[in-house]
This record gives sequence, structure tokens and C-alpha cells, in this order.
Amino acid sequence: MILFEPGVCQVDVATGQLKGATNRYVKTFRDLAGLYRDESAYQALIATRGDDVAYEVTDYPSANGGDIIIGVTRMEPGKIGDEYFMTRGHIHARPNRPEMYYGEAGVGVMLLESPHGEIRTIEIRARTMCYVPPFWIHRSVNVGLEPLVMTFSYPADAGQDYDVIAKAGGMRSRIVDDGNGGWTTVDNAGYSGRHPSLVEDIMSRVD
Amino acid sequence: MILFEPGVCQVDVATGQLKGATNRYVKTFRDLAGLYRDESAYQALIATRGDDVAYEVTDYPSANGGDIIIGVTRMEPGKIGDEYFMTRGHIHARPNRPEMYYGEAGVGVMLLESPHGEIRTIEIRARTMCYVPPFWIHRSVNVGLEPLVMTFSYPADAGQDYDVIAKAGGMRSRIVDDGNGGWTTVDNAGYSGRHPSLVEDIMSRVD
Repeated sequence: MILFEPGVCQVDVATGQLKGATNRYVKTFRDLAGLYRDESAYQALIATRGDDVAYEVTDYPSANGGDIIIGVTRMEPGKIGDEYFMTRGHIHARPNRPEMYYGEAGVGVMLLESPHGEIRTIEIRARTMCYVPPFWIHRSVNVGLEPLVMTFSYPADAGQDYDVIAKAGGMRSRIVDDGNGGWTTVDNAGYSGRHPSLVEDIMSRVD
Repeated sequence: MILFEPGVCQVDVATGQLKGATNRYVKTFRDLAGLYRDESAYQALIATRGDDVAYEVTDYPSANGGDIIIGVTRMEPGKIGDEYFMTRGHIHARPNRPEMYYGEAGVGVMLLESPHGEIRTIEIRARTMCYVPPFWIHRSVNVGLEPLVMTFSYPADAGQDYDVIAKAGGMRSRIVDDGNGGWTTVDNAGYSGRHPSLVEDIMSRVD
């Protein structure tokens, strides 16, 4: 057996990137169609900033199935209507895999939803560690005025399933401006929940 | 199935502790007998600082076997003779489990050794991510003048095997003062290496 080599990368908080990363992906604002409540505000943003990067991820994946992926995510600050910028969100394709997020700069909220529709929110500032347990759908929201930068680590075989959110008409809650520069949680009127058979299917995936 | 609750902890870099941790352990200088080359210098330190904390770990373990442990380690700066303060070091009891270390404060070296006796060193400063791949024995060394503080994450079922180092007469290399305030690697004269049957045993543990 040939061993993997130890690795080293440097987190550049100012740019929100991992120097030495072997993988990068970006989402532009145009990629985020259908996420936000205020469609006309979204279209107005797309008209001027459609090809701008809404968020990006740089990471250092290892090649071994049971291994860890470590990296950095950076998200622009801003709102669409009163709704703060957010990631698409996902559950792990192997849903029993956990994840750890760690605040570097800015102010974020991790919005979590169980397959059954329970909601949790965790505010993340610099040096906050957030543990995302197995089976929780999770989405990052930038509720601050500066870029939100977080590092993360999770098992390399976790994978991402985005459809779990689309199938339910979005996540149960939206994170919006509370009118005082802070954030609050409101119901997502388009939320349909998940059929018990889908919940059962998710909860049965424990390989 | 009852889901685990999402978790949140705050890293206090100044104290080197995780606020909200559910687990803590410490090693005093007295606990580190047999690690250092200069036994008389070690005994002199023990005489005055034997019960002082050499390093400590605070972490947030989750209860699920396949899950992630996240936490903080803090190590005092100093030397015994010309050899920098270090942790005992270990290989994971399930040796195919990886680990991620992340620099918060101070200057450290991650000393890595393969079961076959290959050595690697990675210098860790603030915002350095260090990937410890499966099957590598690893030990942290504080080569700076300040406390070394790092965060880490690794699979909760990894476990620690310390004997793998003792059985070989220590690690192959020692990290010592280079005479200019920096660090360098020297051979450990007491190193015996590992019998091929022990190497084979370690490499076969892939559950």
C-alpha cells in the first residue's frame, strides 16, 4: 500500500481562499435561481451582477474514500429583498456523515433542517465551531456586512444532495433582516415538507 | 432514530481552550517521562514544574461512532536540553483514519512518521491547515516562544495508540533548536524501527 503524503495549505482570510487547494468551485448569482422569495429583486440583481461570484469554495480533497476534505468557503454580503445571501444548501449524499464549520471572518448563520422538518439556527462568528450532525440539511447564510469566511472539514465520501431542498419547496425557514440590522427567522410560504417515504428513504441510508 | 443536536463551541485562542467543550484532558511534564533525549534536563524540569500542564486538549466529541471530534490543543513553549516541548504522539488505533490540524497561535511542527520509518515535518503557523493522512504517526512540537494553539478534527472512532512510538524507541527524528532560534531535525539515537510483522499488522487494520 502506498501512503498518502501529508499536506499543508494556508488559509487566506482576506481573500477567503485556501492557498494550496487542489479544487475550487464557484456559484454566481445566476446559479441561484429559485432560492429567494422576492423574484423581482432577484431579477434586478441578476441584471447587474448575474455573473458575479456569490460564493466560492476552495478545498483540499484527499483521494481516499474514508478520508477528510478540508477547505474554505467565502460568501458575499448582501440581501435579495429582505433575505440574506445564502448557499444552495444540501444534505450529504451519504446522509449519516457529519461536518464541522469554523468561523474566520464576518457573521453567518448555519440554517439546519432535519428531514422531518425541524429547524435549528447557529450564529457563527470568528472562532465559532459549528457541528453539523449526520442527517441535517444545512445552508450557510451571510447575515453580516462583510464577506463571510469559514473553514470546514467533512468525510470525503459524504457527497452533496441538493434536491432534498428543492423537493420540499425550499427550507422551512428563511433568514431575513429583522429591520434593526440583525437577522430573524420567518416561515417559507412555499415549503411543502417531505413525504414520509422520502424521510424514511433518507434515514435508511446509513452505509 | 433520534438525531444528534447541532452543536456550537467557541475557541478561545488566548487560553487555548474550547468553550463549550464536553471533554478535557491534560498532560503534566511528569506524564512525559522517557520522551526526551536529555534525561538530566528532564529531571531538572520535573523538580520545579513536574505538576504543571505541558499540554491540554479540550474537545467536543459526538457520541456516534462514525462521527467527528472537534477541539483545541494548547502546548507550553520551552525546551528540555535543546529539544522542543512535544506531545507524546500517536497513531490512530484505527490507523486508516485521517486528521486535520489548524494553526491558531504560536509556531509548531507536526512531526510525522510512517510505520516503515519515513519522516515528514510540516511547520504550522496561524491559519495553516495540516492534513495528517491515514497510517501516519504524528506528534506536535512547539518550536516557538509562545503557547502553540491548534484546532483539530478527526473521525470519532479513530482512537489513539501511543505504544507504536514506545515500541520503536521513540520517533525516528527529534526536533531541536538549530542554534539560531529556529528548529531542525536530528536522528534519534535510540530509534530501533519496527519489525516487519508489526508494520504489516498496522497496515492491515483497515476496518
